[in-house]
Amino acid sequence: MDKVLFAVLKKITPSKTQEKEMESIKEKILSAADSVIKPLNLSRTLAGSLMRNTWLPDKKEIDVFIEFPKEISRDDLEKQGLEIGKKIVKKLKGKHIIAYAEHPYVRGFVNGFWVDIVPCYKLENAREIKSSVDRTPFHNEWLSEKFKEEYIPETRLLKRFLKGIGIYGSDAKTLGFSGYLCELLIVHYKTFKNFVKKCSKWKPGKVFIDLEGYYKSMPEKFLNSPLVVIDPVDPNRNVAAAVSALNFTKLVISCENFLGKPSIRFFFPKTRKPDVKKIENKIKERGTGFIAILFKTPNIVEDTLWPQLRKTAKRIANVFKEYDFDVMGYDIWSGQKESVLVFELQSLRLPKIKKLIGPRVFSEKHSKQFITKYKKTGKLWIEGENWTAEIYRKIQTAEEVIKVFLSNSEKGLREKGIASYIAKSISKGFNIMKQKEIIDFAKKNSDFSMFLKEYLERNLFCNS
Amino acid sequence: MDKVLFAVLKKITPSKTQEKEMESIKEKILSAADSVIKPLNLSRTLAGSLMRNTWLPDKKEIDVFIEFPKEISRDDLEKQGLEIGKKIVKKLKGKHIIAYAEHPYVRGFVNGFWVDIVPCYKLENAREIKSSVDRTPFHNEWLSEKFKEEYIPETRLLKRFLKGIGIYGSDAKTLGFSGYLCELLIVHYKTFKNFVKKCSKWKPGKVFIDLEGYYKSMPEKFLNSPLVVIDPVDPNRNVAAAVSALNFTKLVISCENFLGKPSIRFFFPKTRKPDVKKIENKIKERGTGFIAILFKTPNIVEDTLWPQLRKTAKRIANVFKEYDFDVMGYDIWSGQKESVLVFELQSLRLPKIKKLIGPRVFSEKHSKQFITKYKKTGKLWIEGENWTAEIYRKIQTAEEVIKVFLSNSEKGLREKGIASYIAKSISKGFNIMKQKEIIDFAKKNSDFSMFLKEYLERNLFCNS
Repeated sequence: MDKVLFAVLKKITPSKTQEKEMESIKEKILSAADSVIKPLNLSRTLAGSLMRNTWLPDKKEIDVFIEFPKEISRDDLEKQGLEIGKKIVKKLKGKHIIAYAEHPYVRGFVNGFWVDIVPCYKLENAREIKSSVDRTPFHNEWLSEKFKEEYIPETRLLKRFLKGIGIYGSDAKTLGFSGYLCELLIVHYKTFKNFVKKCSKWKPGKVFIDLEGYYKSMPEKFLNSPLVVIDPVDPNRNVAAAVSALNFTKLVISCENFLGKPSIRFFFPKTRKPDVKKIENKIKERGTGFIAILFKTPNIVEDTLWPQLRKTAKRIANVFKEYDFDVMGYDIWSGQKESVLVFELQSLRLPKIKKLIGPRVFSEKHSKQFITKYKKTGKLWIEGENWTAEIYRKIQTAEEVIKVFLSNSEKGLREKGIASYIAKSISKGFNIMKQKEIIDFAKKNSDFSMFLKEYLERNLFCNS
Repeated sequence: MDKVLFAVLKKITPSKTQEKEMESIKEKILSAADSVIKPLNLSRTLAGSLMRNTWLPDKKEIDVFIEFPKEISRDDLEKQGLEIGKKIVKKLKGKHIIAYAEHPYVRGFVNGFWVDIVPCYKLENAREIKSSVDRTPFHNEWLSEKFKEEYIPETRLLKRFLKGIGIYGSDAKTLGFSGYLCELLIVHYKTFKNFVKKCSKWKPGKVFIDLEGYYKSMPEKFLNSPLVVIDPVDPNRNVAAAVSALNFTKLVISCENFLGKPSIRFFFPKTRKPDVKKIENKIKERGTGFIAILFKTPNIVEDTLWPQLRKTAKRIANVFKEYDFDVMGYDIWSGQKESVLVFELQSLRLPKIKKLIGPRVFSEKHSKQFITKYKKTGKLWIEGENWTAEIYRKIQTAEEVIKVFLSNSEKGLREKGIASYIAKSISKGFNIMKQKEIIDFAKKNSDFSMFLKEYLERNLFCNS
């Protein structure tokens, strides 16, 4: 294992050149920021990985937090925050966009780096925080004491391992492990090697890490989280709250497998361009029906987009169920321009007739109701002791379900449970893709074909 | 209505010639019987409709009951009964077969009439009866007092009405009204017209006719029968026990409709040869999958055959369900030579994959069991908080289900729940018919095509 870790470290430790580049851009940004905020009597801080030097060499993002006094209103904070952000990016001769998370912020592109300028409150105590970004200065403070120099390579190994298995990031798309969480885990387990050993034994709901010793035992409110890591600066917060049960288990199994057979592939998996012909065959072999909805990706940050995509996909899956379609699975793909919701149904077409078992003939009241309800619209008879009705479906195909449900105004879609930004996009138009069109789309879009391949192969235990 | 009833009566009152023919064959049979049983000191009696002259002109059946003393064993009764039967038929120069109901009896064919010679016990009290045939002499006795001359045409009208709507006969195939039950209903309601009026208001489980006044109110044991008519000679017996909920309701609705618009068509429905092309279109329109099993009809009486066919069809429907096929309906057709079990499924083919939702990840024990069970044979992952498995079906088509289930020895089939005579027949061979073959069979067999038409049109309320 040591050999593998050594080889990985060689790849993930920023080179002198990279460090210099990062240092220089950081300096540039901070001085630009300072020149803007000093006159306003504000302070600023950086995201933790830059503070503690735990960033990975492919990181091309810098987060600057602009700290406002707590007396200022949220509205003013947002307004001034945007002004300041724009000014800083302008000073740096970069381009900016306005992004939205818990509140709007400025995202600039400067010398090949993404620079997020995020306003937050400067508070005395982490328990006073008003939004998650307000916590960052406290995290920096706590770790400046506890995070040792020797943890740097260990943290990098952990981050790269998580990246390799696809669960690095606590964002709404990934539902995995944040950089801060990685640092805390290394503070707790000291080395990556030790972490892997311990993690391979983790059981969901049984892992409780409380570095500051706030609790005697796991508090009830965290009982249903697969992993609980109490925030050292805020005992009410589980730093691992975003980690899904699936990603928790992926990590545990990966650790187990890595211990059994260490390989650099866990950190740097091979990514071959998938063979669309193979994907097509796999889809056919399943004997199910695939149908997908394609629409323009709303221009919003991923942390807003992904919950909306998930909510929408779930809503549509439920609509299929209401129309008696058996949903075997669904998943979401989202690219820069277009997003696709893919549904796998037992069948894309249902019979014209539908049979309903009614009340027992001996129940006069219920029999009467059942007869009244179906006498005119269907056929009625008795099987055994029960009234039975045969009614006719108005909608027989999955395609029609989508058309009827989604052909609506933005307002109408929102009222039907489609998330707001998605409703807006879909109301302007959408395409229905069936098996053939899905394959065609995969042929043109290798990221989508990778997504399809992963959907078809999802399995926590390799056995093929 | 009177005009209709008058017209019907003209058709269903036996002509003088028919009466003479019946009289002469009856005399012949009785004298042949007497010459055989007098030396043995036995008595005989006839079925009720001949005694009370309530038979319909198309009746070509005569039942003779040979009465044995109650001291003789059941074995001896059967043995001697068969001997006597054979002798009688021989004397009449007819041909005979051995038929089986509750016990074996001789069925002869004489001058175009079917003659059943049925051995029974001669008892003093109807409560001593050992099999249902022993009751007939008591019924004759009771009705000889209560059944008036003027009931004859009324009974004939009722019998013909029931025949017209397809529910005359308490046999295992029809599950309808016996001749004796018709006579009792007329004793109770006096006229057919009155019967129709009262019956149109019947509610299942609410009709209780107790001519001898044995009970103060409906006894609990009959609570789940749609219609209860206490046997005047045996208070423990519901003469209408065979009447199914469906046939009860058919009668009530027919009476209602007849009152609304009297027509001779209720007694003599039009029977056009069905248009197989139309049947084919109807089947296609439904969008379901039809599959049928064809085998040689076992050479047994219908009262044994039909329960066995029903049991077998139900068993196979359950097998389909076990393999995840959605059974929309099934029905039985049985001809002289061949019998067919027809199944209508939501689809004749299921996907190759099957998805199973497992335990929550937090349940360590159940998760372990689930993982162990499906790790090697399928794919495993987590959706939300639950383990999920994707496994592969060995059997994807309804055709394969039938092949695998029915390709077996007689013993094997019986062990799997197939009724004995059917198991014997199927073990010697069966054919699977799919949509096309079913239509082809209907083209060659108009009785089967009529059966299919009725299956497709079954509806108690005409609304098309």
